[in-house]
Amino acid sequence: MDSRHPILVGDVWTPAHGERSFQATNPATGDLLPDQYPISDWHDCETILDQAHEAFVRMVDTPVERISDFLVTYADLLTADADSICRIASLETGLPVSPRLRDVELARTTNQLRQAASAALDGSWRLAAIDTQYQLRSMLSAVGPVVVFGPNNFPLAFNAVSGGDFATAIAAGNPVIAKAHPLQPTTSRKLAELAAQAAAACRLPPGTIQMMYHLEPEDGLRLVRDRRVGAVGFTGGRPSGLKLKAACDSVGKPVYLEMSSLNPVIVLPGALRERLPEIAQEFCDSCLMAAGQMCTNPGLVLLIRSTEALQLQQQVAEQLHNRTPGILFSAAGRDSLHRSVQAIVQAGAELIVGGYPLPEPGFRYANTLLTCSADQFLSARDAFQVEMFGSASLIVYADDDRQLSQVIASLEGNLTGSMYSSRTGEDESLYARLAPVLRQRVGRLNNDKMPTGVVVSPAMCHGGPYPSTGHPGFTAVGIPGAMRRFAMLQCYDRVRPERLPNWLADANPNGRCWRWVDDQWTTADVGAAR
Amino acid sequence: MDSRHPILVGDVWTPAHGERSFQATNPATGDLLPDQYPISDWHDCETILDQAHEAFVRMVDTPVERISDFLVTYADLLTADADSICRIASLETGLPVSPRLRDVELARTTNQLRQAASAALDGSWRLAAIDTQYQLRSMLSAVGPVVVFGPNNFPLAFNAVSGGDFATAIAAGNPVIAKAHPLQPTTSRKLAELAAQAAAACRLPPGTIQMMYHLEPEDGLRLVRDRRVGAVGFTGGRPSGLKLKAACDSVGKPVYLEMSSLNPVIVLPGALRERLPEIAQEFCDSCLMAAGQMCTNPGLVLLIRSTEALQLQQQVAEQLHNRTPGILFSAAGRDSLHRSVQAIVQAGAELIVGGYPLPEPGFRYANTLLTCSADQFLSARDAFQVEMFGSASLIVYADDDRQLSQVIASLEGNLTGSMYSSRTGEDESLYARLAPVLRQRVGRLNNDKMPTGVVVSPAMCHGGPYPSTGHPGFTAVGIPGAMRRFAMLQCYDRVRPERLPNWLADANPNGRCWRWVDDQWTTADVGAAR
Repeated sequence: MDSRHPILVGDVWTPAHGERSFQATNPATGDLLPDQYPISDWHDCETILDQAHEAFVRMVDTPVERISDFLVTYADLLTADADSICRIASLETGLPVSPRLRDVELARTTNQLRQAASAALDGSWRLAAIDTQYQLRSMLSAVGPVVVFGPNNFPLAFNAVSGGDFATAIAAGNPVIAKAHPLQPTTSRKLAELAAQAAAACRLPPGTIQMMYHLEPEDGLRLVRDRRVGAVGFTGGRPSGLKLKAACDSVGKPVYLEMSSLNPVIVLPGALRERLPEIAQEFCDSCLMAAGQMCTNPGLVLLIRSTEALQLQQQVAEQLHNRTPGILFSAAGRDSLHRSVQAIVQAGAELIVGGYPLPEPGFRYANTLLTCSADQFLSARDAFQVEMFGSASLIVYADDDRQLSQVIASLEGNLTGSMYSSRTGEDESLYARLAPVLRQRVGRLNNDKMPTGVVVSPAMCHGGPYPSTGHPGFTAVGIPGAMRRFAMLQCYDRVRPERLPNWLADANPNGRCWRWVDDQWTTADVGAAR
Repeated sequence: MDSRHPILVGDVWTPAHGERSFQATNPATGDLLPDQYPISDWHDCETILDQAHEAFVRMVDTPVERISDFLVTYADLLTADADSICRIASLETGLPVSPRLRDVELARTTNQLRQAASAALDGSWRLAAIDTQYQLRSMLSAVGPVVVFGPNNFPLAFNAVSGGDFATAIAAGNPVIAKAHPLQPTTSRKLAELAAQAAAACRLPPGTIQMMYHLEPEDGLRLVRDRRVGAVGFTGGRPSGLKLKAACDSVGKPVYLEMSSLNPVIVLPGALRERLPEIAQEFCDSCLMAAGQMCTNPGLVLLIRSTEALQLQQQVAEQLHNRTPGILFSAAGRDSLHRSVQAIVQAGAELIVGGYPLPEPGFRYANTLLTCSADQFLSARDAFQVEMFGSASLIVYADDDRQLSQVIASLEGNLTGSMYSSRTGEDESLYARLAPVLRQRVGRLNNDKMPTGVVVSPAMCHGGPYPSTGHPGFTAVGIPGAMRRFAMLQCYDRVRPERLPNWLADANPNGRCWRWVDDQWTTADVGAAR
C-alpha cells in the first residue's frame, strides 16, 4: 500500500512508480507537513510522455471553444475554492493569505486563465498571414506537449499547473506536463485536482493536463530532451535553468527560461534632491516584498556619490534594520541567500546592515544592504552580479556620470531597469545619455517606479537579454504575447481551401480574429478585405 | 605590399591583419581564379566588433528614413550593375547568368531589399503594443550587431552582404558583420563595394556594414560568442550550423540557422493514377534545379508500393539518367554529396541510377536515384535521413497507408513537406490522416507542388522544426516576419511621454504603422483609437 499521493497521468490519479518520497515543510515553523508525495522516476515520465503525445494528436481536432471553456471553468473552480487553496499555499510558503495570496495572487491567476481563454477563442495571437496572390497562408500553431517547471515564489500565478506558462501553453493548444515545485506539493495537488475536474467537464483529451510532484534532476533533463516534447517553460534559479537550457539546446528544443535578474535601480541626482524620503520608502517596500523573493526584486542600486546618495543609503539602512524580515520559502533558500551575500562581501562589498541568517524556528534572513564603489564593481563585474534572492540589495557608487554609464554598460541582461529622475527636468540630459545604455540591457525600462509589480498586459515584457532569460524576443507575462512562445510557424502553400484550418480560411472564423491579409491587419473576410 | 584584397572595416577598405590567403575556383573548369583574398584572424574580428558596437550605438538615433533610403539605394546600384555582378557570380558558382542569376536571383535580391526598406519605414513589423490603462508600451527593437554567414548556393539572394538576413537585420536597425562565403569572394566584394557606396551616400554610421571573406573556424565561433554581438544568422550545412549553434547557445546568443532539409514529397495513390507523367516531370525539374543545390530540394519521396509507384520511379530514373548533370559549386561539395549517397547505400538503399562523381574538368555528379523500403527506413531512420546536397533523391516504399503514416511520423524536422493528391477527391480520407502527421514535421506544407520556389511573402515560412532550423517559431524568408528574428522585445513602463520612441508615442509616427492599442490593431493615434 502506497501512502504517497498519486500523480496525475492521462486523466487518472495514478500511484507513482518510483520508490522515493518527500514531504513539504512549513517554512514559518520548520515543521514537516504530514502528506507524503512521490519522487517520480523515468517510468512515470515515459507513461506521461505517451499520454501527452496522444493528447496532442487529439488537441489538434479539439474545438478551441472547448479549450477556452476549460480555462474559464478552471478559473471559476479556483475562485470557488479560494479559501482552501490559499490556506494551503500559505502553509507551504509562509506567504500571507491576505492580501497576498487571495486578493493579489489568486486574482491574478484566474485573470490570466480568463485572458488566455479569451485569446484562444479570438485567435489574433496566431499572427495569421494571408497572401492571396501566391495562395500562401501561415500562422502560429501549437508546438506540442509543453513541460512546465514552476518556481518557488508564486505558488498560484506561476504554478506549473495553474500559472502563466500553463495558461498560455494550453491556450495555444498544447498539452502540459507540469512539474510542480517540491516546496508546494499540496498546493499543486489541490490545483491539479481542480484542473483535472475542469478538463473532464469540458472533455479535453485525456493527458492534456498531467502532473508530477518531483523528479530526479537527471530525469528532468531526459524529459525535456524527449522527442515527444514540443517546448519547455521554466521559472526558477539560474543553475537549474542553465542545466535545462543545455539539455534543450543539445536537441534543438525551444525552451523559455526566466532565470535571474538584479533589476538595477538608478536614481539620478535631481530625483534624490527632490524626493529622497519617498524614494527610500518605495525602495524598501519593493525590496521587502515577499521577503524579497521576487524575480523583479531591486537587488542593485546605482548612484552617483553625493551627500544625498549617502542619505538615501542611511534611510534605507534604517528601514531595513527596523522592519521585520519576512519568512523565506526554505532553509535551502536562506542558505543560498547567505552564500550570495557572502560572495559579494568576499568580492569587496561593505556590509551596511544584515548579512546573517536569523535563528529558527522558521526560515529568515536579516534584511541586508551592501555597498561598493563603481571601481570595485567594474574590476570584478561578474563577482558583484550575483542574485541575492531575498531582501538584500547592493548600492554601487559611481564617481561621476561617465562612470555610472560604464557600470550600466557592464551589466548583464536583466528583466527590468528603473530610472528615477527629477520631475522638473534637471536630470534630462543625463537621462538621455544613460537610458539608451540601460535600454539594451533590460526587457522593461521603468520611469520613477520600482521593478516589482508585473502587470498582465499585452504591452508587458517580462523577459530580457540573457541571462535573465534564454531569448530576448519573448515575454513570460502578458497575453497574447506569452502564448507565442509555445507555438511553431506553419505555412500552407497552395493548400486546397477546404483543407485549410479555419483560422486561415477566406471567411474570418469568428468575425473578430485579426489577420494580416495582403499587407494589412483586418478582421474582414478575405475578398472583402480591401 | 599585400596582394590580397582588403576587407571592409568600419567604412574603410582595410588590409586584413592575418597572413593567410585563399583564391576562389571556377567550378565549371576547376581553374583557380586570379584574385587573392585574406583569411581574417582574431585581430580583424576585434576591430570589426568595436566598429559594429559603435555603429549600433549610433544606429539607435539614426532616422529610419536613412536606413530605408540605404536599402533602396543599394537595390538601385545592384540593378545598375547587374551584368557585371551576375557575370562574376556565374564564374564563381557555375550558375547561369540567365535566367537564374540576373532574371531570378538578382531580381529577388533587390525585391527583398526594397521590401525591407518599406517595412522599416512602415514600422508594423515591430508589433508595437500600447496599454493606456497601465501606461505600458512595448515593441520589437534592434538587438545589436548581427553576424551573417552566407551559404554557397545563393550568391546574391542569401549573400551575407546582400541577402535576406542582411536586408532584414539592417531594416530592423542592426549593423551587420558579413562573413562572405569563401567560394564567392569576388561576388561578395562587388556587392560589398556597392553596399558601402550606398551606406556612405545615405550617411549610415560607419561600421553598419562590414565584411570579411574568410575566417578560421575557431575565430568564427569566438566571434559569435562575443558580448558585442546581438544575434547570428546562418544558412548552410548542418555540421557548421550545429557548431555555431553550440557556441551561441553556450552564451545565450540568439541564433537563427537554416541547416538542412530533405523536403519529403508524398504522392498519394489517386494522384499517381491521375497524372503520373506530370508529377514525374515536376519532380525531375525540381530535383535538377541548380544541380539540386537548393535547401528545398526534394530529397525524399514517400510512396505506397504499387504498379503506378514503380512507373513513377521508372520515369524519374529515365529522366535523371538522360538529363545533363549541372555544375556543383565545389569539389568538396561533390565529395560530400558522394559520401552522403554512399552512406545511404550503406544503410541498405538500392541505387537505381547515378551514385558516382563525373570526371573533371568541372565538378559534377551523376543525377542519382535511390530506393528503400519503409521497413528499412523505419529500422534505421537516422541513417536514411541524410541530406544529399545535389540532384539525388531517395524513394521510400511503404506497404500500406499505415506504414506510410509511420514513416512520416519518423521524419526529422524539415523546411517543407509536399502532398500530391487526386483532384477528384479519392485521396481525401488518406490526406486527412497523413497531413496532420506531416504538418508537425515541416514549416511549409505544400499541396500538389514541389518544394523548390520560396516566395518572398509575409505569409511565407522558410523555417521549420529542428534540425531544419534552430527554432520553429521563425522564418528566414518573408518580410516583415524575418525581421523579427533580429530584435528584442522592449517594454516601457510608465516612461514619460516625451522620452518614448516615436513608434510608441500617442501619435502614430507615420499614420500607417499598425499598433496593438488596447486590444486591437489600429493605425490611429492613441486616444483616437476607439
